[in-house]
Amino acid sequence: MENIREAFGKFLDYQLRLSNLYHAMNLLHWDMSTIMPPKDAERRSEVVGFMSQEAFRIETDKDFIELTDSLFEVRDGLSDQEKAMVEKQKKEQDFKKKIPEAEYLEYSILVSRGEKIWEDARNADDYEAFRPTLEKIVQFNRKIADYIGWEETRYDALLDLYEPGMKVSDIDKVFSEVRDGLVSILDRIRAKGVVIDDSFLHDKFDKRLQEEYNRDLAKRLGFDFEAGVMAVSAHPFTTNFGNKDVRITTRYDENDLMMSVYSTIHEAGHAIYEQNIPDELAKTNIGGGVSMGIHESQSRFYENIIGRSRGFIGSELPRLAERFPNLSDVSPDDFHKAVNKVMPSLIRIEADELTYSLHIIIRYEIEKAFINGEVDFNELPKLWSDKYREYLGIEPSNFREGVLQDVHWAGGMIGYFPSYALGNLYGAQMLYKGIMRDLPDYDEIVASGDLTRVTSWLKDNIHTHGGTYKPSVLIGKVTGEALSAEYFLRYIEDKYSRLYGI
Amino acid sequence: MENIREAFGKFLDYQLRLSNLYHAMNLLHWDMSTIMPPKDAERRSEVVGFMSQEAFRIETDKDFIELTDSLFEVRDGLSDQEKAMVEKQKKEQDFKKKIPEAEYLEYSILVSRGEKIWEDARNADDYEAFRPTLEKIVQFNRKIADYIGWEETRYDALLDLYEPGMKVSDIDKVFSEVRDGLVSILDRIRAKGVVIDDSFLHDKFDKRLQEEYNRDLAKRLGFDFEAGVMAVSAHPFTTNFGNKDVRITTRYDENDLMMSVYSTIHEAGHAIYEQNIPDELAKTNIGGGVSMGIHESQSRFYENIIGRSRGFIGSELPRLAERFPNLSDVSPDDFHKAVNKVMPSLIRIEADELTYSLHIIIRYEIEKAFINGEVDFNELPKLWSDKYREYLGIEPSNFREGVLQDVHWAGGMIGYFPSYALGNLYGAQMLYKGIMRDLPDYDEIVASGDLTRVTSWLKDNIHTHGGTYKPSVLIGKVTGEALSAEYFLRYIEDKYSRLYGI
Repeated sequence: MENIREAFGKFLDYQLRLSNLYHAMNLLHWDMSTIMPPKDAERRSEVVGFMSQEAFRIETDKDFIELTDSLFEVRDGLSDQEKAMVEKQKKEQDFKKKIPEAEYLEYSILVSRGEKIWEDARNADDYEAFRPTLEKIVQFNRKIADYIGWEETRYDALLDLYEPGMKVSDIDKVFSEVRDGLVSILDRIRAKGVVIDDSFLHDKFDKRLQEEYNRDLAKRLGFDFEAGVMAVSAHPFTTNFGNKDVRITTRYDENDLMMSVYSTIHEAGHAIYEQNIPDELAKTNIGGGVSMGIHESQSRFYENIIGRSRGFIGSELPRLAERFPNLSDVSPDDFHKAVNKVMPSLIRIEADELTYSLHIIIRYEIEKAFINGEVDFNELPKLWSDKYREYLGIEPSNFREGVLQDVHWAGGMIGYFPSYALGNLYGAQMLYKGIMRDLPDYDEIVASGDLTRVTSWLKDNIHTHGGTYKPSVLIGKVTGEALSAEYFLRYIEDKYSRLYGI
Repeated sequence: MENIREAFGKFLDYQLRLSNLYHAMNLLHWDMSTIMPPKDAERRSEVVGFMSQEAFRIETDKDFIELTDSLFEVRDGLSDQEKAMVEKQKKEQDFKKKIPEAEYLEYSILVSRGEKIWEDARNADDYEAFRPTLEKIVQFNRKIADYIGWEETRYDALLDLYEPGMKVSDIDKVFSEVRDGLVSILDRIRAKGVVIDDSFLHDKFDKRLQEEYNRDLAKRLGFDFEAGVMAVSAHPFTTNFGNKDVRITTRYDENDLMMSVYSTIHEAGHAIYEQNIPDELAKTNIGGGVSMGIHESQSRFYENIIGRSRGFIGSELPRLAERFPNLSDVSPDDFHKAVNKVMPSLIRIEADELTYSLHIIIRYEIEKAFINGEVDFNELPKLWSDKYREYLGIEPSNFREGVLQDVHWAGGMIGYFPSYALGNLYGAQMLYKGIMRDLPDYDEIVASGDLTRVTSWLKDNIHTHGGTYKPSVLIGKVTGEALSAEYFLRYIEDKYSRLYGI
C-alpha cells in the first residue's frame, strides 16, 4: 500500500464526510422530536431516508472499503485512536458484506413497520397482534447473528453490536450474582415491612419553576450550555452533532417533581460524556461514547450514585425548597428516603434503583432463550410472568404492563437491554476502584454541591478516550480489574441496609 | 431524445434530490439562527459547506445538464409548470457554465469575507475600511453581468437574478414616477406641519403577552401552525423546508409593541405564500415564491396595505387593549395615525411606509451608477448624502447611518434592492386591479378581522402558481396590465391625504 499516513488521511476524509451527514441527520431527527410541525412528518421522513442513503453510499464505497481493508492490515502501525477507527469501520463494513443486501432491506422494512404494529398492539393490549411480527424479528436476528458469526453462543453476535467484545460467558456470571444479590436484599426489605412516605414529591410543582431549577442543575452538574441545548420532548433523550452541540430533553409533570429532575440528571450524564470528547476524535467514528453500556454508566452514575445519594440531597434540597415552599418542612433524610423508595413494580422505566436491574436481567434471560430457539412465542407472556413473580414477587395482569411494555424488540434491538444493567455495574466499579481511590474526599465533594472534581475524573478517565477502547479494556484500564458484580452489590447493600435499617 | 415523459421523470428525480439537500441545509441554517449553541458555529459552517458542495455536485452533474438541455429543446411540449422548471434549471446551469469556476470561487470567498469586513467597518463607522472590498465586489459584479450577457444595459443581467425578466427600462420609468410622486406628497405633509403622537406605542409591553398576541395574530392571518413554526431570533426572517414546514421569527422589544407586530405580519405574509404552494410543485425548483419582488408584494401587502389600514386597526385594537390595558384609552383613529406616522429617517429598515420606497430608489440609482462605472467610490458617501438630502430632506452625519447601513452589497447582492419597492408596486396593483375587482366588499372584509377571503384570493391568484410564471407574466395574468406606478401612488395619495388632511 501507499504511504500509511497518506492513506490514513484519506480515511479521515471519508470519516469527515460521514460525520457531516450524521450531523445533518441527527439535527433532522432532533427537530422532528422537538419542533417540527406535524404536517411535515411524511416529507421529513423522506429527507431523512435520502440522507441515510447518502451515508450508505459512502459507507459502501468500493474505494473506502479497500482503503479500510489495507489500513486494517497495517493497523499495528497506527496509534490506539487510529486503530480503533479502522477496526470499527472494518467491523461495520464486514457486517454489511456478510448480510445479503436484499435480506437486510427486508429486515429494515420489518422493524420499521414493527414499531407501529407494536404500538397498536400495546394500545389494544393485544399480544397476539404483535406475536407474529416479534417471531419474525427474532428469527431474523438469529439469521443475522449467524451471518455475523459467533464462537460460543449465537447471542454473542448480537451483544457485540451494542457492547463490543462482551460475551454471554462474561455476563451470565455477573448477572446471576446481581440477580441473586438483589433478590435477597429485596426480600430483607420486604420482611422489614417499612413503608417510606414519598407523598410530598407528588404535590403541585409549577412547571416553569421546575424548568428553571433543572436548567440551573444541569449547569452545575457540568453541562455546558455554550455547547449544548436543553429542550422539552414527549420522551426525554440526548442527541448530539459532534462535541460542540449536545442536546438533552426533559419532560415536566406538575405532580411529579423528581421525574424531570432525575431525567435531567440522567440525560446530562450522557451529554457531559459527549461534550468531553476531545476535538481530535469529534469528526470520526470514535467521536462518541464507546458503547451503550459505558454511556449508561455515565448517565446512571449521575442519576443514581450521585443524584440519589444523601450528600447530594443534602446540598440540593435547600435549592429546591427555595423554589418550592411546599418542600420546606421536609428533612433531608426523609427526602433521601423518598427518592430511594423501593417498590417492586411492573414497568421498567418507572423502577427504583434497586429493582431496575432485575427488570433488565429478566429481559436478558428471555432474549437469550429466544435467540437460542428455546421459547414458544405463545408462551412468552407466561415466561415473562413467571420471572417477574420469581424475582420481583409480582406479575402483570395485562400485556401492556408485561411483555408489550418496551419498544426495543419491535425495533429489532435484541442484545441491547444488558447495556442498562452493565451501566450500573460499570458505574459502581468506577466508583469504588477509581473515583474513591483517586478522590478520597469523594463523599465531601458530593455533599458540597460542587461536582467539578468528579466530572473532571470522569472526563480524564472515561470521556477523553471516546470510542478508542472497548468497554472491557477501558474498565480494565480505569479500575485495574475485569467487570465484576461485587461493587454494584456492595454499593446497593451499603445504601439500602442503611436506608431500610436491614 | 428518449421519451419526453421518461426524461422529465428523471429530471424530477434530480429535483427531488436537490430538494432533500436544501431541506436539510435550510434546517441547519434555521437552527443556527435560533437554537444552536455558540461553540458549534465553526463546525456547523463546515457541515453547511459540505451540504452545499453536495448540492453543487448534483447541479453540475453532466447527465443532469444534458437532460436539462434536451428537455429545454422540447419545452414547448411540456406543461407551464414543467416548462418553468426546465427553464429555471437551464438558466442556473448556464449561469454556472458562463462564469469561470476559479473566478466564481474567488468571488464567493470575497463576499463571504465581505460581510465580516462590512460588519467591522460599520461598527467602527469607517467607510474607508470597507471601500476597497466594496469596489472589488462591484467590479466582480460587472464582470459577472458581462459573463451572463445583457442587451440594453449591464445592470439588467444582475436584476434578472432576483427579478427574472425585469429590466432597467421597465423600472426606470416606474421608479422615477414613484420617486417624484412620493417626494411631492412628502413635501405636502411637511408643509402641513402636523405632528402625530405615537408615544403610547413606546410604553411598556410585557414580552410574554406580546408573544401570545403575535401567535394569535399569525394564526388569524392564515399562518398554519400545523405546517409552521414561530420562534425568536435577533433578526426576523422566514425560512422553509417545502410547503409543510415554514418558519418565521420575530423579536420582541418591551418598549416597542408594534415592532414585533409588524414583523410578525410581514413574515407571516412570506410564510403564507410558501404554505400555499401546491404539493405537486413543493419538491421542485419552482416550489417557492417566483421572485424576491413578488415575495415582498405578499409580505408588504399584509404588513402595510392590510396591517396599517384603518379597518384592520379598528378590529385589532380591542384585542391589543385586552392584553395591554395601557392602550385602552387610545382611539382607533389615533392608533391608526400612530402606526402611519411619516418621519423621514436615515435608516431604511426603520422607515415608514411612505418614505420606505425612497430609500430603495436611492439604492437603485446608486447601484445602477456604479455598475455603469459612473461612481468614484471615494465619493460614494457624498452621492448617498446628496440623494438623501434631495429626496428626504435629511442626510447622515456618519457612515453607519449612511452608506454602511445595509449588508446587501457586502454580501454581493447587487440588483436585489429594487425587489422591495417592486413589492410595494405589485401589491398596490393587485389590490386595485385584482382584489377589489373580485372582492367588492374588500374594506368590510378587512374591518371584520376575518381575512380568509383575502388570503384565499392571494392563494388562488398568486401562491398556487409557485414559480411557474415570471413576475411580469404573473402580474399581467392577475391584473390584466403591465407593471405600473399608478396604483401604488394612488394608494399612498389616498391614504396619506386623509391621514394628514392634505
